[in-house]
Amino acid sequence: MGIHMDLIKTIEWKDDKVIILDQRRLPNEEVYNTYEDYLGVAQAIHGMVIRGAPAIGVAAAMGVALGAMGIGVGTFDAYYEKLIAICNRIASTRPTAVNLFWALDRMKACALANKDRPLNQITEILKAEALGIYSEDIESNRMIGRNGQKLLRDGMTVLTHCNAGGLATAGYGTALGVIYAASEAGKRIHVMADETRPRLQGAKLTAWELQKHGLQVTVIADTMAGHFMKKGKIDAVLVGADRIAANGDVANKIGTYQVAVLAARHKIPFYVAAPVSTIDPKISSGEEVPIEERDPQEVTHIGSIQITPKYVKVENPSFDVTPAELVTAIITERGVCEPPYAESIAQILGTA
Amino acid sequence: MGIHMDLIKTIEWKDDKVIILDQRRLPNEEVYNTYEDYLGVAQAIHGMVIRGAPAIGVAAAMGVALGAMGIGVGTFDAYYEKLIAICNRIASTRPTAVNLFWALDRMKACALANKDRPLNQITEILKAEALGIYSEDIESNRMIGRNGQKLLRDGMTVLTHCNAGGLATAGYGTALGVIYAASEAGKRIHVMADETRPRLQGAKLTAWELQKHGLQVTVIADTMAGHFMKKGKIDAVLVGADRIAANGDVANKIGTYQVAVLAARHKIPFYVAAPVSTIDPKISSGEEVPIEERDPQEVTHIGSIQITPKYVKVENPSFDVTPAELVTAIITERGVCEPPYAESIAQILGTA
Repeated sequence: MGIHMDLIKTIEWKDDKVIILDQRRLPNEEVYNTYEDYLGVAQAIHGMVIRGAPAIGVAAAMGVALGAMGIGVGTFDAYYEKLIAICNRIASTRPTAVNLFWALDRMKACALANKDRPLNQITEILKAEALGIYSEDIESNRMIGRNGQKLLRDGMTVLTHCNAGGLATAGYGTALGVIYAASEAGKRIHVMADETRPRLQGAKLTAWELQKHGLQVTVIADTMAGHFMKKGKIDAVLVGADRIAANGDVANKIGTYQVAVLAARHKIPFYVAAPVSTIDPKISSGEEVPIEERDPQEVTHIGSIQITPKYVKVENPSFDVTPAELVTAIITERGVCEPPYAESIAQILGTA
Repeated sequence: MGIHMDLIKTIEWKDDKVIILDQRRLPNEEVYNTYEDYLGVAQAIHGMVIRGAPAIGVAAAMGVALGAMGIGVGTFDAYYEKLIAICNRIASTRPTAVNLFWALDRMKACALANKDRPLNQITEILKAEALGIYSEDIESNRMIGRNGQKLLRDGMTVLTHCNAGGLATAGYGTALGVIYAASEAGKRIHVMADETRPRLQGAKLTAWELQKHGLQVTVIADTMAGHFMKKGKIDAVLVGADRIAANGDVANKIGTYQVAVLAARHKIPFYVAAPVSTIDPKISSGEEVPIEERDPQEVTHIGSIQITPKYVKVENPSFDVTPAELVTAIITERGVCEPPYAESIAQILGTA
């Protein structure tokens, strides 16, 4: 057996406050922000203090729990109306990751299921539900790791894009969770991390957490993945997901699609690791996923430095869609889905 | 007819000095450095004050001319020995672009061909030869433009990678020269420029010169090319080259290969524009091209800001090789080569 991976404290519920590791300040500073109200959490999600589909889901749930604590009304209907307003505010932060909406739906359903209880009890139940989503995320990540690590061999070099690690989840990781589970099983895995412009999550976050865990990581520019595949230096690709359609199309960080195209050309397996909560059975193909457009300044500037000439036009779609045909397997906590995905996904969701 | 493009003053010979636009300071500052000796020019090439295969060739020739002016010896043999030392110093600056070696070979051959003349006359002839290389580069760029612009239609969006413009040449451009010629012919072309990490030549240089010429340009991160191709937003790809093998394999800025793979998947033509001096008939395939590895700091830092955690390993190959099978056509000043390249290249070189 290999080493044991500690959890990263991406987000925690403590003394009725939410503590979030400020990912905008990594890797240089490890700063934990404290949020006492849901608006702060909404701003943290929008501003990418916390990011990564599963982590956004946990933050949304904890945000609702914080919000519920502040509702001071007498009837359930008035309480629920305020809860819906809180959920709507949090839902407006980011459009692509489905885990956000999944967590909000679950919090709303939880309140409704307990509508006959006293309101202060409902609030306690909502807090417990948020903590449940947090714990389940860690547990499902560990199961993803166990299911996925069987696909990795000792000595492999695995390319990852963006950050689908402890920092993108409640603390263990999806794509990186598979790497951690392989390491815990004694396999030596070398990770190549695309830097992932514009926000550099690979260079900043993936490198930071792999280094923290003592794993081997090499950062490359996004321009280099094809070159290293051609040179035979990459054995597998492993990424997370922000939303998976019923047909297996995968919405994930911009740049994922082209890595998948490159992997297919070089006959390198392309794996997606994600909890079942990332699957959106309501959409039939990835083309229906709303793609977030972010501030042009993410492209024109790096930190405070402007890299482009002034007034030059830029585009900044934050996600892209990888068609199912390019995906070798989708690793979930309930098992590994293989093509045809319409069937294997329905099976894992229990809707087959 | 459209607009007329002024030359960019990338490099000039003036009063027995070499004036080079410092590309490290673009797009924020337009600063022209003056070099009075060949060592300064060698450092300018090595440090990427000037870059781009054809521009490096011109700078090398002017560097040799500067160096020749400083040789104070009596016999041709002693003169030539010093000239070789100067050439060797300049040759050591960058390994991949063949135009550098081509220009140095041409300067040496010019000296040898005039060995029976007085030395001060040989020096004048070498100056004239360097100026000839400069003028021919502009003329060949304009011919590349005329030959290539026929491939572009009014209203097209063309993706380019790195900078193969006026800044990469004596002033007009190869890949961007084709865009300029199309504009001069009245066609409206929209350019998408990959930012081209690690050194951001697309975001900084290509955006700067297209904006200066009043053309439409949109900068995208290197992670976005595949996404926009999939969305049908890119009609053609047009890049330069640092060295082209006899079989049509193209060494060019890192990231070019993966753009070519993406273009092939989306059935988008992938054009390479380069002068004949970029073709290296001595190498049979791109795998023989020496690939420059540059300072890791280009990846770990952007400007003075460190983006990766400290001590993280990075890779920084500066070029990659695009196999001929992915190249739709190679546009030269003597005509457009199409597959099979072994034949069409031999024909253009007159070695068929």
